Amino acid sequence: MRDFDTTIRETAGLIETALDQFLPRRSGPLGRVVDAMRHGALDGGKRLRPFLLIAAADMFDCPRTRSVRAGCAIEMIHCYSLIHDDLPAMDDSDLRRGRPSVHKAFDDATAILAGDALLTEAFEILAHRDTHPNAEVRCRLALELARGAGKDGMVGGQMIDIYAEQKSFDLAGIEELQRLKTGALIRFSAMAGGVIGEGSEADIAALTSYAEDLGLAFQIVDDLLDAFGAAEELGKPVGQDADMDKATFVKLLGAEGARDQARRLIEECKAHLDRFGPRAEPLKGAADFVFNRKN
Amino acid sequence: MRDFDTTIRETAGLIETALDQFLPRRSGPLGRVVDAMRHGALDGGKRLRPFLLIAAADMFDCPRTRSVRAGCAIEMIHCYSLIHDDLPAMDDSDLRRGRPSVHKAFDDATAILAGDALLTEAFEILAHRDTHPNAEVRCRLALELARGAGKDGMVGGQMIDIYAEQKSFDLAGIEELQRLKTGALIRFSAMAGGVIGEGSEADIAALTSYAEDLGLAFQIVDDLLDAFGAAEELGKPVGQDADMDKATFVKLLGAEGARDQARRLIEECKAHLDRFGPRAEPLKGAADFVFNRKN
Repeated sequence: MRDFDTTIRETAGLIETALDQFLPRRSGPLGRVVDAMRHGALDGGKRLRPFLLIAAADMFDCPRTRSVRAGCAIEMIHCYSLIHDDLPAMDDSDLRRGRPSVHKAFDDATAILAGDALLTEAFEILAHRDTHPNAEVRCRLALELARGAGKDGMVGGQMIDIYAEQKSFDLAGIEELQRLKTGALIRFSAMAGGVIGEGSEADIAALTSYAEDLGLAFQIVDDLLDAFGAAEELGKPVGQDADMDKATFVKLLGAEGARDQARRLIEECKAHLDRFGPRAEPLKGAADFVFNRKN
Repeated sequence: MRDFDTTIRETAGLIETALDQFLPRRSGPLGRVVDAMRHGALDGGKRLRPFLLIAAADMFDCPRTRSVRAGCAIEMIHCYSLIHDDLPAMDDSDLRRGRPSVHKAFDDATAILAGDALLTEAFEILAHRDTHPNAEVRCRLALELARGAGKDGMVGGQMIDIYAEQKSFDLAGIEELQRLKTGALIRFSAMAGGVIGEGSEADIAALTSYAEDLGLAFQIVDDLLDAFGAAEELGKPVGQDADMDKATFVKLLGAEGARDQARRLIEECKAHLDRFGPRAEPLKGAADFVFNRKN
């Protein structure tokens, strides 16, 4: 675990530096939207999605200059979704990672525009020649990211989520919600590492399967953390979702059932990586990290 | 003019049909975001931006299947910007083209997500092989659209616009605002027709110059219509901008000065098309249409 912590921190540092360079400060009113983009995108969390992309691309000896660019694109999509999610019209969250959310630090209009601009910038980065010399690769990245982020992916999942609070879902329903809302971007992240690394279609399919299982495990652990706090403290309720009568994996499977299911998915997702041998250790470490994470 | 009216109505019909096919109705909560996207994108206005793209591409005998797809992408960007602009946090407009705006017909959260999804879908369309067999062309379209729509284009212009209401701009300032807020997408539209038609770089540069002059004329006419209603009724105030102490071309140049300036720009933009000979008639018709439009 110690080794993995160092690895993910190192790639998070690369992403932080690159995001900072993609978003140079400006003066005047134009500078305000850039400041809001920076507020929403910099000093981020562990940068799990870029890590998955970079670690997958590393297996194919893809130059980091390329994979870090694509990692910034996925992180901009992730951060735009958080900015819009936090708006009063959506989840109405004043805090994000312990700091004021973008609409609190600026205002609602600026937060809407900053999210729009990050979303747009992600595609500008992917379409640019510096991301990969082969335009077919760049188009495939942009196409898959759009599919993962749009109405049949993340945005569709957020739409379902808004309505899921009002009625109870069965397990199939909650899995479908997860597959769209959080799964689609995680799926893209690992798959895109195979695409930008020009792996074979079989390699890309294995990475996709890995990420699908990982994404589901991620959401189950999220529900456990929401309900009980850190995993070793099972039984100590801290979360809000249960209060809101929202269907979660914990509610539907019970705490032990949910944890067993997450453990099973982590084993399965790692098995998909066997074809890559020891090169897959960082991605296997990411799976253990997802299972053991405390927040 | 009669011929041009028929031409632009015909391409608007092609765009309407294609948008309808890109956004098939769905059931359940996912269907709600699609319904909101359809509300914001269908039954649209004259589809000027797609017209510019298609008419420019026609000059190079580009198959309509391709140019209509790219036209849908630009129209999705335009419509997403209207949906987000109309939100209470932005312009707070309850009506759009005589119908309830998306957030009134649905709710704010749905409008935010529908806008996000249209923005994302635009890039999905451009990145898809059906838009052009050459991936370099697709990437260039996506790159230029992102530049025109993002923080250094339309979104940046909207950010400036929010703050421009609070202080008065000089002519250079208002031209810069226009260049970003409405000009960047109009510029992209004509230029993209040259890119997708695989015109020469000189052809693309001429189309870009045409669109830059056209976009500025468009905004000046917009200000005139806001201030005085239809052009032949100069002197009859109907608009709101003057009340809000907002800098406009009319305020800075006077009504006659603004009209002269628009007329000059229309002549200049048409001159950029001389290299294309009679094939450029539809684009020249678009310029006259922009100057003579009544709404």
